[in-house]
Amino acid sequence: MDRFFNPNAVAVVGASARPGKIGYEVLRSVVGSGYGGAVYPINPGHAGKELLGRRCYARLADLPQRAQLAVMVIRAEKVPEAMEECAAAGVERVVIISGGFKELGKEGEALERRSIEIARSGGIRVIGPNCIGISSSTSRLETFFQPREMMARPGPGNIAILSQSGTYGATLLEWFADEGLGVSKFVSYGNRSDIDEADLAGYLADDASTGLMVFYVEGFQRAREFFETAERAGPRKPVLMLKGGRTGAGAHAAASHTGSVAGSFSSFRGAMAQCGVVLARDSEELFDLAKLFALQPPPSGGRVMMVTNGAGPCVVAADLISESAHLTMAQLSAEGAAALKQRLPPYDVVGNPVDLTGSADAAAFLVALEVLASDPGVDILMPVFVFQDAPLGFTADELERVISKICARGRTMAAVAGGGPFTRRQAARLQKVGMPVFPSAGRAVRALEGLVGHARWAKGHRKVEYGSNE
Amino acid sequence: MDRFFNPNAVAVVGASARPGKIGYEVLRSVVGSGYGGAVYPINPGHAGKELLGRRCYARLADLPQRAQLAVMVIRAEKVPEAMEECAAAGVERVVIISGGFKELGKEGEALERRSIEIARSGGIRVIGPNCIGISSSTSRLETFFQPREMMARPGPGNIAILSQSGTYGATLLEWFADEGLGVSKFVSYGNRSDIDEADLAGYLADDASTGLMVFYVEGFQRAREFFETAERAGPRKPVLMLKGGRTGAGAHAAASHTGSVAGSFSSFRGAMAQCGVVLARDSEELFDLAKLFALQPPPSGGRVMMVTNGAGPCVVAADLISESAHLTMAQLSAEGAAALKQRLPPYDVVGNPVDLTGSADAAAFLVALEVLASDPGVDILMPVFVFQDAPLGFTADELERVISKICARGRTMAAVAGGGPFTRRQAARLQKVGMPVFPSAGRAVRALEGLVGHARWAKGHRKVEYGSNE
Repeated sequence: MDRFFNPNAVAVVGASARPGKIGYEVLRSVVGSGYGGAVYPINPGHAGKELLGRRCYARLADLPQRAQLAVMVIRAEKVPEAMEECAAAGVERVVIISGGFKELGKEGEALERRSIEIARSGGIRVIGPNCIGISSSTSRLETFFQPREMMARPGPGNIAILSQSGTYGATLLEWFADEGLGVSKFVSYGNRSDIDEADLAGYLADDASTGLMVFYVEGFQRAREFFETAERAGPRKPVLMLKGGRTGAGAHAAASHTGSVAGSFSSFRGAMAQCGVVLARDSEELFDLAKLFALQPPPSGGRVMMVTNGAGPCVVAADLISESAHLTMAQLSAEGAAALKQRLPPYDVVGNPVDLTGSADAAAFLVALEVLASDPGVDILMPVFVFQDAPLGFTADELERVISKICARGRTMAAVAGGGPFTRRQAARLQKVGMPVFPSAGRAVRALEGLVGHARWAKGHRKVEYGSNE
Repeated sequence: MDRFFNPNAVAVVGASARPGKIGYEVLRSVVGSGYGGAVYPINPGHAGKELLGRRCYARLADLPQRAQLAVMVIRAEKVPEAMEECAAAGVERVVIISGGFKELGKEGEALERRSIEIARSGGIRVIGPNCIGISSSTSRLETFFQPREMMARPGPGNIAILSQSGTYGATLLEWFADEGLGVSKFVSYGNRSDIDEADLAGYLADDASTGLMVFYVEGFQRAREFFETAERAGPRKPVLMLKGGRTGAGAHAAASHTGSVAGSFSSFRGAMAQCGVVLARDSEELFDLAKLFALQPPPSGGRVMMVTNGAGPCVVAADLISESAHLTMAQLSAEGAAALKQRLPPYDVVGNPVDLTGSADAAAFLVALEVLASDPGVDILMPVFVFQDAPLGFTADELERVISKICARGRTMAAVAGGGPFTRRQAARLQKVGMPVFPSAGRAVRALEGLVGHARWAKGHRKVEYGSNE
């Protein structure tokens, strides 16, 4: 797998000179990504000319050096022949961006099978077809045909994104970029004719740059291998997943999307629970889970304590916590309650939530959070901030210091703050110092539910913890 | 009620000269909102001076004219006395922003009761206490203590927001502003010591500027009256609601938030279904419902047809549609399928979704949407856009014209597009021409579920349709 992310040189087969064409945009990404190896556009029509400052070649055989990776952006019908050329030229890895294969039915399936047979006999491993390719934060290589001005790229980080869907891949990349979360490796693997989710999980389980795997999967190719790896890696590297094709209608849609056989979801659900795979119901929930898992330590339990300067969302959160499987409303210890009553103004409500009221500033949050973060009755702290209220809004600098201080205590935290541009700016500041901020109570609670569920699963799996024989 | 929104003059009792103080920020809002009537700061400490360009008075009795509305931003203990002054000075309506009443327990409850008794005997109606007050798009009056730089205000429109929680009120106002949705009237009514949800619904049912009511409610004061009004108004003016305090823990939190008795939710749930109140589970879902109801006509049924240039989210949408109560996957008529197969390139997949693939531009969407919008097998059109893909991204101008054209057909539509800044800009453009765009399939499906459920309810209620005796 590592050769996909760190090849000596990359050939772009089907490079185009026309902006907006996929063959141009892929080349532009590879050239503009900061990747340090050689880049060779391949296109007989432009041979000898320069494309985006790189000399273009008619065929792989003409290159001045062997390129370990080829990215194909040519019509499906031409892929088998190009694969032959790859094998002859000593290419070791191929990413097929092009669609037009298994997802279109029998004819496309045959084309895909033929291409893979050629690859196999030439010792070539393949990602795709029908995908947006890969990126790596270490080599900085990326193969996306989405222009940078239309798709923001996240910075480096320790989250790997693995998606059969290029669309979900693009969406997640942008949401990660939006909220300052970093990515280690990205793979959109489309029809997964060769490299599959089991290969990816296996590789990432041992990838030092990756601490969390975020999957969008339509069908499992080697389910047993995948789940074994997920279970082995899970206590250290949680596996989060959105599974498309859980229902008959979804499975039908998956078949014409990536040609995947979705399989019976009821059997997978059991395997997922047993192997600690955290299941999301939607792309936003998958993102929320990734954010929380990336920023916060596992909680010691599911008792949630809220503190706020505007309690409406806490009422709804209390409802959702009561209805959840893993969370409960924390009860403050007698000592904690006494300490808060002594240190907070008399009109503040000391309960769950601790309601500091609209007149609360950052200093009031510091007082409350310091007590709550060391209370034995609390596993998770959930501050609900109303940045719109002037007393808190005016003390945002101070709040950033407060939160950074409380984050260092190691108690699991997740905040809520819903609003417009000012609120989003404040939320971004807090997130930068390690506090995940969700726009609604519902999203925070659902993400916490996943985090606590995973922590419980991991506790029961200590014996087989991944890497215990290091 | 109308006098709250269109008073001849407004007195701000407890106006302050210090930025950041609630008494200052409320005055700043009233003065800076564009409200055309006189504004009188009241504060004995500043009498004779000017506050924000308005002459300050020691007491209501000193004003040069009778003010129909007083906004109180003074400590709870001082409210009864101020209410006496209001009654003596002929004030007719009072908004009590201050907290410190029923939500704090017995003592506060007594204070609240006394204030309301004084109001009643003086013929004064009261909103609050413990709230952020009101705004009106027609008089442009607003009483918020949230500074404009910390809380964006939406423009005028036909959605009324009614919230016991000021926090949810502020959040919704900002989300509406973010996405270009307009508000007719806003009321944060906190502890609802006097004006309650039944008063608000009754007034808005006949308010020409309001076409949709969006409620956050913790407890019902006069449940029967409220539900009767909601049922009467519902077919024309849908009532959307987030209900806090559905569970024991939530009800407990509600009691210390607005002093509300949440009541048994199971009984309310039945009443809500019967009266056509559309229930949201979270603030974001409430917002999504408001957006969809505001922008789109009721669908003729629940058959959803998707069209996309990147089908991953359609697979997940198909799962969620299958699991929903009111939606099903649409099946294209034989004629529609034949028309699409003839007009689209051979590698496009004609099914549900219609997959135009990553090479689709706005023209391809036009072809597909024109056929689908008139297909008898389709009630709802759900385009899933990948703006990150260059072919579509580069034709955004054209897409805006396409969507505007298709919207005019009157078929119900809801789009999905998840991504970063570029995607959000394109989504905003489409939303401006009437197409609601959601960041994930899950959010679109849940909102559609509410819209179809309401349309079904309204069909069954034609006999008692509101206004049928006009």
